[in-house]
Amino acid sequence: MNRPSGLRFRPLGIDSAHDHIVYMNAGCHICRAEGFAAQTRLVVAANGHSLIATLNTVHSDLLGIDEVSLSVSAQQRLGVVAGDQLYFSHVPVLRAESFIREKLYGHRLNGPHFEAIVADTVNGRLSDLHLAAFVAACAGERLDIRETASLTRAMVAAGARLDWGSHPVVDKHCVGGLPGNRTTPIVVAIVTAAGLLMPKTSSRAITSPAGTADTMEVLAPVDLDLSAIRRVVERTGGCVVWGGGMQLSPADDLLIRIERSLDLDSDGQLVASILSKKIAAGSDRVLIDLPVGPSAKVRSAVLARKLSKRLCRVGAELGLMVETVLSDGSQPIGRGIGPALEARDLLQVLRNDAEAPGDLRLRALWLAGRVLEMGDAAAPGEGMSRAAELLEQGLAWRQFEAICEAQGGLRSVPCAPLTEVVTAAQAGRVTQIDNRVLARIAKLAGAPEAKAAGVDLHIKLGQRVEAGQPLFTLHAEAPGELRYAARYAAEQTGVIGIHHD
Amino acid sequence: MNRPSGLRFRPLGIDSAHDHIVYMNAGCHICRAEGFAAQTRLVVAANGHSLIATLNTVHSDLLGIDEVSLSVSAQQRLGVVAGDQLYFSHVPVLRAESFIREKLYGHRLNGPHFEAIVADTVNGRLSDLHLAAFVAACAGERLDIRETASLTRAMVAAGARLDWGSHPVVDKHCVGGLPGNRTTPIVVAIVTAAGLLMPKTSSRAITSPAGTADTMEVLAPVDLDLSAIRRVVERTGGCVVWGGGMQLSPADDLLIRIERSLDLDSDGQLVASILSKKIAAGSDRVLIDLPVGPSAKVRSAVLARKLSKRLCRVGAELGLMVETVLSDGSQPIGRGIGPALEARDLLQVLRNDAEAPGDLRLRALWLAGRVLEMGDAAAPGEGMSRAAELLEQGLAWRQFEAICEAQGGLRSVPCAPLTEVVTAAQAGRVTQIDNRVLARIAKLAGAPEAKAAGVDLHIKLGQRVEAGQPLFTLHAEAPGELRYAARYAAEQTGVIGIHHD
Repeated sequence: MNRPSGLRFRPLGIDSAHDHIVYMNAGCHICRAEGFAAQTRLVVAANGHSLIATLNTVHSDLLGIDEVSLSVSAQQRLGVVAGDQLYFSHVPVLRAESFIREKLYGHRLNGPHFEAIVADTVNGRLSDLHLAAFVAACAGERLDIRETASLTRAMVAAGARLDWGSHPVVDKHCVGGLPGNRTTPIVVAIVTAAGLLMPKTSSRAITSPAGTADTMEVLAPVDLDLSAIRRVVERTGGCVVWGGGMQLSPADDLLIRIERSLDLDSDGQLVASILSKKIAAGSDRVLIDLPVGPSAKVRSAVLARKLSKRLCRVGAELGLMVETVLSDGSQPIGRGIGPALEARDLLQVLRNDAEAPGDLRLRALWLAGRVLEMGDAAAPGEGMSRAAELLEQGLAWRQFEAICEAQGGLRSVPCAPLTEVVTAAQAGRVTQIDNRVLARIAKLAGAPEAKAAGVDLHIKLGQRVEAGQPLFTLHAEAPGELRYAARYAAEQTGVIGIHHD
Repeated sequence: MNRPSGLRFRPLGIDSAHDHIVYMNAGCHICRAEGFAAQTRLVVAANGHSLIATLNTVHSDLLGIDEVSLSVSAQQRLGVVAGDQLYFSHVPVLRAESFIREKLYGHRLNGPHFEAIVADTVNGRLSDLHLAAFVAACAGERLDIRETASLTRAMVAAGARLDWGSHPVVDKHCVGGLPGNRTTPIVVAIVTAAGLLMPKTSSRAITSPAGTADTMEVLAPVDLDLSAIRRVVERTGGCVVWGGGMQLSPADDLLIRIERSLDLDSDGQLVASILSKKIAAGSDRVLIDLPVGPSAKVRSAVLARKLSKRLCRVGAELGLMVETVLSDGSQPIGRGIGPALEARDLLQVLRNDAEAPGDLRLRALWLAGRVLEMGDAAAPGEGMSRAAELLEQGLAWRQFEAICEAQGGLRSVPCAPLTEVVTAAQAGRVTQIDNRVLARIAKLAGAPEAKAAGVDLHIKLGQRVEAGQPLFTLHAEAPGELRYAARYAAEQTGVIGIHHD
């Protein structure tokens, strides 16, 4: 059904994220002849490439009847420029769609089924609606261990896979939700100082005020290509880089978007998401930190243990050694929330500064110790003391400097020009800290785009405070953002719970 | 979180169907301050109204940094014009979202749950992704009878409900998928000639080449307001009008869009869809025709019986008398496929023309007979002969004329200016007719927008044909459409299966 006559591309610069949209004048011959109406899915071809997009019809002079436009992501994917000719055809029936339906109807899917779904996800052939149906089909414990393993395998196969030419390759992952919990760069510095290989690919923030890549970027370049990363790892044994440009489990990025929109995080998909990224990054021994707390991602130890079991079993199916630790997720770690503030905290730990936040230090040592043991760089039970040695002797710091230099040079941490202190309305004891609200305040203040923006927390759970005592300081780079964050913070009386005692 | 400073509305005329989109310059202060990125959902307020829309950011001079635009449906819903000020805030947490999640996690939902979901669907607060998740959550037998009844009740309650002041009010519905199956106007004419009340609200085609409203519109106006409909029904006892403008079960229209996109038609949602429309239209005795065939909507008798049971049981829960008939869905009914061609067929039946298609006549009499019995206008077993009397004595035709006159005047049926005959490539017996492909050909020829366009079928299953004998004739109003339909038809060798015998 390819039509010989196409339409001329005219860029409009509309960004609809990953959802490919094609814009056509409602009166154009393609709409009329093909019976295409708004929301029709259609195949768009140009320059020998094609993708599937959703039609929006234009009822104005924004586009002429011989013109067509694409959302930014679709434009980039097809590589078209103004004046290029685009061609349209009907969408073929996708096998992936029928597999998603089968899963919804209660059937178990196998490897080839998941491969088809993942391939059509990555190729942009499935609409967001289909992806939502797939996410829904997998929710509520509907993926068993074998299906989770098949999905993970399919996600790995659909992207690039790194090979470091040497084993073991250790990694460490945190199942998010805890502001300021920036142990990763410290762990990488310690375990690579012990001679282990830990090439760490991290993500940027999606809904949080900082991802590890955002924080690390304050200290060194993180947007390296694969050959640059190989040079860094060869020289130092480790790296802390942004993994988003490397096409490691690209289906994961697409599915995560949908899961976030629906606030649906099934254990099956969470496990496939984490493990596919780790396997694609070439790791074979992975420690996974599960912070548990009422406002963390995992809300109870029961849920954490269930998730832990699935992680370990699916890991075993795929030849990946997985260990998990349940950690305290009741309050932020360290003091800073936001890229630069977190970078400051972790530098203090690495430099053995007297004022370094003790909780961040302890947590990093604990996790690094476990990784050292998993990587056979410390005897069982001796990992944490070995990690402490490496840190206290300055070897971790030297190693971190080397990694930053290899990545392009250690940078100094910026300071926010604007701050505002939020104080306690009453005296009492701190009984509760809402991680989610604090994260939101830091984002309103500009994090992570504004690197220096965020929240600097001055209190911990259980601490006694006086009325008027500073609870946290807002940091911002722009007056408007400071104002918004301050206004929102003022409305959130429960963010720091203080009880008379 | 309402911000005091808004953005100025500038219409762009982009139609994204029911999916509300808000367009903002990526550099505007709202995007920056609120951390809104592409695909964020946000509340848009203007003129005392508000709705929830998905953000698309604009990276061009299409919009200034103090401007904002909306998709056509959102613009209409807010009633804004160029220059109006729009205000933005974060989306509150919707209870409906958590109920959808609960359903996905395997919990049973009750009346208030469905009411919340349906209300947020109708209010445009749920995104298409959430609706897809809801449709998915209900797929695969996951709604039991009580849940289906609760959903139906909630769908009725969320819209207008007609009351005809008299009982019984009979109705007849066909679970689609069979081209040319235009019995409804004939049934209405016959049963209202017998004195029953049958105010029929019909739909236009969504994916088919003609809906009952499209076909009826060839013969009389169908887009009447409620008071006009009441006058027609008071005068004649019946009507055949378009029900789309009356807000009868408006959630149904929104959910059907998503089900179509996903090609997911769970029995639970199908039943809620059909019955909510009937109850809202004020019917209390409904006959439902289930055509069964390999290329019809219901593909086997087993599936039809399951659906039938659910229709009757849910109907009973809601005080609606439902009877079903399983009918032959193996080939099109009558000869014409497309509004005018179908109108021609049904007029031939009503006028007792010698060349009237016998299958359409028989089917209409059969269904009318069942409705007469359900409405106590014929003794059990005598409905069909009573229907035949009313038809043969010309009472049905006189009644149909009266209804058309009351709706605004009987119109003459248009003829397509362009036709092309498709002939048999070989001699043999017709063993298969693909309803779906024929429907698609009729649509490519321009139906239903081009009223006279469509397919005129010259053969029936089992008939012997010679090589070169006409199988069907394409009717079109424009040369381009005739060409497309002919080209597609030439590629579809299996549309009429002919076997040597």
